[in-house]
Parts: sequence; structure tokens; C-alpha cells
Amino acid sequence: MSGPGQAFEALAAALRKLPGIGPKAAERLAYFLVRAPRDTVDGLTRALAAARSRVRTCRACFNLTEDDPCVICTDSRRDRNVICVVEQASQIAAVERTREFHGLYHVLQGVLSPLDGVGPDDLKVKELLARVREGGGREVIIAVNPKTEGEHTAAYLAQLLHPLGVKVTRIASGVPLGADLEYTDELTLARALDGRREL
Amino acid sequence: MSGPGQAFEALAAALRKLPGIGPKAAERLAYFLVRAPRDTVDGLTRALAAARSRVRTCRACFNLTEDDPCVICTDSRRDRNVICVVEQASQIAAVERTREFHGLYHVLQGVLSPLDGVGPDDLKVKELLARVREGGGREVIIAVNPKTEGEHTAAYLAQLLHPLGVKVTRIASGVPLGADLEYTDELTLARALDGRREL
Repeated sequence: MSGPGQAFEALAAALRKLPGIGPKAAERLAYFLVRAPRDTVDGLTRALAAARSRVRTCRACFNLTEDDPCVICTDSRRDRNVICVVEQASQIAAVERTREFHGLYHVLQGVLSPLDGVGPDDLKVKELLARVREGGGREVIIAVNPKTEGEHTAAYLAQLLHPLGVKVTRIASGVPLGADLEYTDELTLARALDGRREL
Repeated sequence: MSGPGQAFEALAAALRKLPGIGPKAAERLAYFLVRAPRDTVDGLTRALAAARSRVRTCRACFNLTEDDPCVICTDSRRDRNVICVVEQASQIAAVERTREFHGLYHVLQGVLSPLDGVGPDDLKVKELLARVREGGGREVIIAVNPKTEGEHTAAYLAQLLHPLGVKVTRIASGVPLGADLEYTDELTLARALDGRREL
């Protein structure tokens, strides 16, 4: 044992539980945090406590927000006829950055994943159906990630939504802009071919 | 503003101050931390407080440690005649992993960096000289990073150490094992040529 001891190891272990933080990054962060000025660390822990106490989920769309309902749901300029379904609140920011979408959102809080024991009741599916039934949408754009679980989830939602008379769409998958076909994986390329459009 | 609000932004800003955490990683961590179970977050903040209160610097070598002096300084099997000088305590673990060094360490707590206002008095230089003067070393291996400031610091320390009659060595620089010359930067390659050894 050449490291700074058990308390240090416990801190590194706690940091490793954070997303995207591997063993090396956790160790580097732990070394920084044990030596950092008190102000830096107090600032971080205060910001963490404040964010946790103030940020909640929007009762309408389940976006993360300090105001409930959120600024998007309360924005009268947004098109209430289109609902974009995402997995996580963090993906709303990504869609907003495109400046191409002016409707409302619905955060599913995950995707169906039978292997992980995630079923429809663990997601905000009922709530989505209720919004659509209450007249909140002529189109539902399913923008969950184009991965296996996402595709299953999209198909499942489409099945439930179609009987409600709403148009259900799925974001396009294909070769990313600026990418080289040579370095595009075969599933993506197959999807791009399959989804080809006439010019 | 489509994000979850000011408290969230403040948390992301605090996280961006951590080493190796860019804007994207900070945002991802913030989204995780505001939604994570209370236990996860409490575990992290408790581990942080505990590590900060328990971890101190070794009075002898300035390693980070819970016991002062540290386990390396108090290990009677270590060779007291060789002192390996590193910039930061985190580098001790890297040298220990080689299992090739059995002497003691000295953490300089940085390198000379006139542009950043870091002079000899900001580093544990006096303390290193005192250890050597008190008979603690026949050889001092200077293992600071092979960057511009590190090289200057190594030369500076050598100047101060030579009059004390101690052997001063510098770790070798060159092409890393497993690397391809084609992808090795020219400074490293030049150094490798310059440091060539007869076989």
C-alpha cells in the first residue's frame, strides 16, 4: 500500500461511481480534492447541496427544473401539438441546441430494458399516454437513442400511441454529418441505406 | 435557457474546476448528481470530508498519508541511501507500481515555474537539502516530469545537491515501450537518440 490510506481509497471509490469516471480519473480527482483549498471544496459541496434541494422534475414533462412546471412547458410560444419523447432530461438540452424543435418534451426517464428489470411501469409511459389523451399532441416524435433498447421502446410506444389517433414519428438514424463511410460501423451504414431518400 | 436552472449551472461550474473535467463531463456529472439517490451523494460527501480531515502530508517526505511519518518513511526495509524526488505525491504510486525502486521519496510539491510565480521557496527544496545534509542519501534520483519546467528544476536541484557530495541522477527520457517511432514526437525521438546506449 503506497497510496495515502483508507480514507483516500474510500474517496476514490466513491468518485468511481460517478458516470464517465474510471479508476485513473477517480484517483486524480481524489488527489486534487484532498489537497484543494477549503474554499474550492466548500464551494463544490454547497453547489451540490443547493442543486439537489432546488432542482426537481417538471410535473408535466419530467424535465429537470427549478420551476414546476418548467420553462418549456410554460412557454406560450411553444407548439403544444408536438411532443418530443427523450430518455433523459439531459437530452432536452441537446435537442434545444438544434433550434429546430419548438414543441414540448416528455422525459421517459429511461428505456425498456427487460434484462435490467426496467418495464413500462418504471418509465413515464402512462403519463405520456395521459398527455396525448388529454389532447396534448397531434404528433409524438420518439427521440430515444437509436440503440437496441431504444428501438424496442420506440416500437412499444408506437403501438400504444397509434390507437389514440396521434401521428408517431422516429428521429432518423444514419451516417453522421461530416463522417467518412470508411469509418462508419456497418449497422449505421445499413440503417443509412435502408432510410435512403429520393432526391 | 433550456437547462435545469441556476443552481444546476452553479453545480456544473463548480465541477468544471476539477482536473480533467471539461464542460461536457461537468454537465453529465451534474445531471447524475442532482438525480442520484441520497445515499450515493451522502456517501460521496462523507468520503470527501473524511479524506480531507484524515489525509495529511508526511513530515519527512511530504507524501500524502494518514500516518505521519508515512508508511514508506517508516518501512525499515526501504533503502535510506536513495531518495527519489517527484513533483506530486500521486507520482509515488506510479513509481511504486514499477516495483523497481526501494528507496525513499521526496515530494517537491511542484516544479520551478517563474511564469506562474513558483520559485524555490514555494517548493520543498530546503527540506530536500536538509535531508541530504543530515546524511539521508547517497543518491538523489530526480524523477520530476520531463517537461521544460521539470528539466529546469532538475538542473537547479543538481546544482544545489552536487556540493553536498551526493550522486544526482535523472530518470531516462525516450521512446515509450511499445510505441512506434512513426508516431513519436520529434522532441522525444531526439532525446531518445541523444540518450542512446551501447549494446
